[in-house]
Amino acid sequence: MSETQMPTARTRVVREADRAVYDREAVYRILDEGFLCHAGFVVDGQPFVIPTSYGRKGASLYIHGSAASRMLRQMQKDEGVPVCITVTLLDGLVLARSVFNHSMNYRSVVILGKATLVDDPEEKLAALRVLSEHILPGRWDDSRQPNERELKATSVLRVPIDEFSAKVRVGPPIDDEEDYAFPTWAGVVPLEMVAGTPIDDARLDPGREVPAYAKHYSRR
Amino acid sequence: MSETQMPTARTRVVREADRAVYDREAVYRILDEGFLCHAGFVVDGQPFVIPTSYGRKGASLYIHGSAASRMLRQMQKDEGVPVCITVTLLDGLVLARSVFNHSMNYRSVVILGKATLVDDPEEKLAALRVLSEHILPGRWDDSRQPNERELKATSVLRVPIDEFSAKVRVGPPIDDEEDYAFPTWAGVVPLEMVAGTPIDDARLDPGREVPAYAKHYSRR
Repeated sequence: MSETQMPTARTRVVREADRAVYDREAVYRILDEGFLCHAGFVVDGQPFVIPTSYGRKGASLYIHGSAASRMLRQMQKDEGVPVCITVTLLDGLVLARSVFNHSMNYRSVVILGKATLVDDPEEKLAALRVLSEHILPGRWDDSRQPNERELKATSVLRVPIDEFSAKVRVGPPIDDEEDYAFPTWAGVVPLEMVAGTPIDDARLDPGREVPAYAKHYSRR
Repeated sequence: MSETQMPTARTRVVREADRAVYDREAVYRILDEGFLCHAGFVVDGQPFVIPTSYGRKGASLYIHGSAASRMLRQMQKDEGVPVCITVTLLDGLVLARSVFNHSMNYRSVVILGKATLVDDPEEKLAALRVLSEHILPGRWDDSRQPNERELKATSVLRVPIDEFSAKVRVGPPIDDEEDYAFPTWAGVVPLEMVAGTPIDDARLDPGREVPAYAKHYSRR
């Protein structure tokens, strides 16, 4: 596959262009830390944005479940559905002296492309494994794996990671020079998605231990 | 304003319909716990999904900044831009015995509507205050407030909370009856967005204390 030159006219970051990132490896790092995306598609001119989990392998992003099913209904045979996949990691609130310079620290990726159906059973199974391992590495081999009926009941879509951009803000507030004397606190309130103590299912076999991948779950 | 009967054909939850919520107060509770939305709009048939902060007052949701600016370019004079505003709170990973029954606990809201420009200066200032207080209550009065130049440089859009739905999943995994004997751990890994210790700006006045709203920041 030939590489699209980044950014395209559609993915060029116009506002706060100094925050733009077009480097594929940097984009992959953001995609690999996240696992929840917001998938956008259009029905009769109306945009829809649906949260859904995703997995990445190489230059492919996979989604499944109800978001995939809804998109599927918009698909022209073999042509795919125009989608926008957005992944956002929120890192903090940025408190400046002026209201105007308040901001957030974040890392976000926007992918534009056409989602296409993964319908070969072998490829579908592989994509579901990618999804599972992306969200919770190690879990696939510990679970009862999909049977033929479940595979048939699951829609999987592939979105090529071909046309993309990222936007990243890090660091302290940047105030206008004359505002540094304004008498208020300024700085960053860090934010992070953290995992709590796993909750055993009520019907769990007595004595079964929480596996390490659930006990020490972290995206970093 | 007359209340649209919920759900409309466009907001009815089709997949996992038992997770659907159409109650306005329940939707407001989700919107008020969150402050980051994913805003979807369409340019030449291509959907775009942009992360941005928001504020709510009554049945109005406000956004500003670069997402608002980008949408604004799509606006027909006085008619507004068709948008989808989606807010997702992620509460946990749900580990079932079977791969197929893995899920997530989450609360999400989807709002469909037309975003319109808030251009009256007084209303714009009020909307910016709503945004600020939604994200960080108490901060507005502690900051240097917007001047005329900054107000002019800021685009604010209003989206009516009129056509909406929510989807909520809570609780343990639900496995197929025959899978409960499968020898693996099952349960929930809780996830939560938490605030860390505030980081003083390097140019902060010595001796200035972190305010309570930053020190004990929580969305719950």
